[in-house]
Amino acid sequence: MSIPATMNALLLTEDGYTKTPSGSVLEAMDPYVEAGTIEVPTPTGREVLVKVRLASINPSDVMFVKGMYGQPRAKGRPAGFEGVGEVVAAGEDPAAQAMMGKRIAFATGLSNWGSWAEYAVADAAACIPIIDSVRDEDAAAMIVNPLTALAMFDIVREEGEKAFVLTAGASQLCKLIMGVAKDEGFRPIAIVRRDEQIPLLLKAGAAHVLNADAPDFAQKMQEVMREEKPRIFLDAVTGPLAGALFNAMPKRARWIIYGRLDQTATAIPEPGQMIFMHKKIEGFWLTEWMRSVPAERRVHAVMEAQKRFSDGRWATDVTAVVPMSEAVGKVAEELAKPNGKVFIAP
Amino acid sequence: MSIPATMNALLLTEDGYTKTPSGSVLEAMDPYVEAGTIEVPTPTGREVLVKVRLASINPSDVMFVKGMYGQPRAKGRPAGFEGVGEVVAAGEDPAAQAMMGKRIAFATGLSNWGSWAEYAVADAAACIPIIDSVRDEDAAAMIVNPLTALAMFDIVREEGEKAFVLTAGASQLCKLIMGVAKDEGFRPIAIVRRDEQIPLLLKAGAAHVLNADAPDFAQKMQEVMREEKPRIFLDAVTGPLAGALFNAMPKRARWIIYGRLDQTATAIPEPGQMIFMHKKIEGFWLTEWMRSVPAERRVHAVMEAQKRFSDGRWATDVTAVVPMSEAVGKVAEELAKPNGKVFIAP
Repeated sequence: MSIPATMNALLLTEDGYTKTPSGSVLEAMDPYVEAGTIEVPTPTGREVLVKVRLASINPSDVMFVKGMYGQPRAKGRPAGFEGVGEVVAAGEDPAAQAMMGKRIAFATGLSNWGSWAEYAVADAAACIPIIDSVRDEDAAAMIVNPLTALAMFDIVREEGEKAFVLTAGASQLCKLIMGVAKDEGFRPIAIVRRDEQIPLLLKAGAAHVLNADAPDFAQKMQEVMREEKPRIFLDAVTGPLAGALFNAMPKRARWIIYGRLDQTATAIPEPGQMIFMHKKIEGFWLTEWMRSVPAERRVHAVMEAQKRFSDGRWATDVTAVVPMSEAVGKVAEELAKPNGKVFIAP
Repeated sequence: MSIPATMNALLLTEDGYTKTPSGSVLEAMDPYVEAGTIEVPTPTGREVLVKVRLASINPSDVMFVKGMYGQPRAKGRPAGFEGVGEVVAAGEDPAAQAMMGKRIAFATGLSNWGSWAEYAVADAAACIPIIDSVRDEDAAAMIVNPLTALAMFDIVREEGEKAFVLTAGASQLCKLIMGVAKDEGFRPIAIVRRDEQIPLLLKAGAAHVLNADAPDFAQKMQEVMREEKPRIFLDAVTGPLAGALFNAMPKRARWIIYGRLDQTATAIPEPGQMIFMHKKIEGFWLTEWMRSVPAERRVHAVMEAQKRFSDGRWATDVTAVVPMSEAVGKVAEELAKPNGKVFIAP
């Protein structure tokens, strides 16, 4: 296959972190990325070059392009943390060579050659050969959300309590977690902001769905906490809502922060609970999980994710597939629609 | 020994928790405790009756009488969490009987018969027979502070980094911790509020002492954090100062809250650090530690505390010994003096 010298891509317009953090909503693409042309990189060592078929847009991508993610931006490089495509070139390492010609799901990690491009670079260790029965839309969103879902559900399972709490309950990630939880007899308590999400999430596996903007939310939350005694709180939002939930949770509750959708201040409502109720606040980051767990656990999670997408227990809800040439103008509007995922097609 | 039917004691004037939390300073005794007479209790089971020689006043006592500690008050019962005295009666349990006639340090725990009284009740498991070479002033403050010091220093030792951070650095507790730390080659970073405490604490074992009210505090704190890379933060204050310290600490920092001297709001300055820097917030409570560690570790800590007080490596700085009959009027004023401990003599 002949590889061109240059390619189209969506390039970051800024370096490092923003000095003026704003909300977690992408109000528009163009302050942060622009359509441009850049040379096609050459993979070395364990890297592979992927001809991208479909790239996904995750909440972490939005935070990243806005300079609000925990990793610095590199101006002029393509954005995009994951996608699906074919390996068309590979570094000299056997692990990279073994991927040649395969359709893979990939995460770009810290390579600075993101997936919102005609070609992307990924470490072979962050590539998953995809079986034929998995759709591109599922494969393009196979790593960030599914592995996070399985890894975080492991925390719930290890803790032992059947009930647990999820903020941003209508996210794709939470739907994946609830699917697994339901199969294993666990009881997710999902927190949302719109009433119309309630029936969808009850169907997806939630034991309770609470609308944080409903007038009786505080009372319902107290009731559910008393009844279910959840121990684990998987939190994508932080801010006052998360603080109130943590505060209402019983002894030995663990607040596990993995996202920061609410950029307002996050208080610990009663620090005495850390002392007398043995509560804890910690974080979850997939990259750290990948580094720290034994390889067999990673492999197991990857297999499990593919099986679930193949047999239909999991499916990615697709809001839109936007051609890359139209992405700068259209993505923000598509992302504003609830309940599904937006993809970029190079 | 003949035991009277009634005794003098300092009795709690309120039940449960306060509805109007105030500062951690005891502005006066009389809203919270009053001098009174009450029947002498009869110990049963594993309980012993102690004729109190000296009772100590800890920051946790102040929080407790004000209704701001993590345990409810019982109106009309004596306050006071620890003291030293002689066992003059015992329940039928052999563990209690074995304490008869001994001079012991004791913690009253949740018995509702506190140490600010002529007689107190303690669980035999919370009594430590005291060797002759230990002074009453050290024995009366042998449990709450010394065991907390040893238990929390264990956390530092297990984490492995030599440097660690302490707020309320001039407290008796922190001085005990720094004494152990110095002996083992660790590097405490003590945070204080008065310049005159700096030389005292450098002598007590601090590697750095920073005055949080000094104009260059923020800059000095950054420098010390960069230089020493402390991993553990033993925090008695919470509030904005604690948040700023935690924020400046490096990757994998653990904020361990054991006190709440600053009652203002406690924010997590950058919740993203929980995700990307793997930081954690937790608590320490001696009662929980006593419950959860193996018995041999408790016994080891008790022996170590006595040895340190006996051979002079530890000594309790005494601000005043106030007769119980004068305590309601005088204790607040004595507690306001820095650098030492106040005792009540029945």
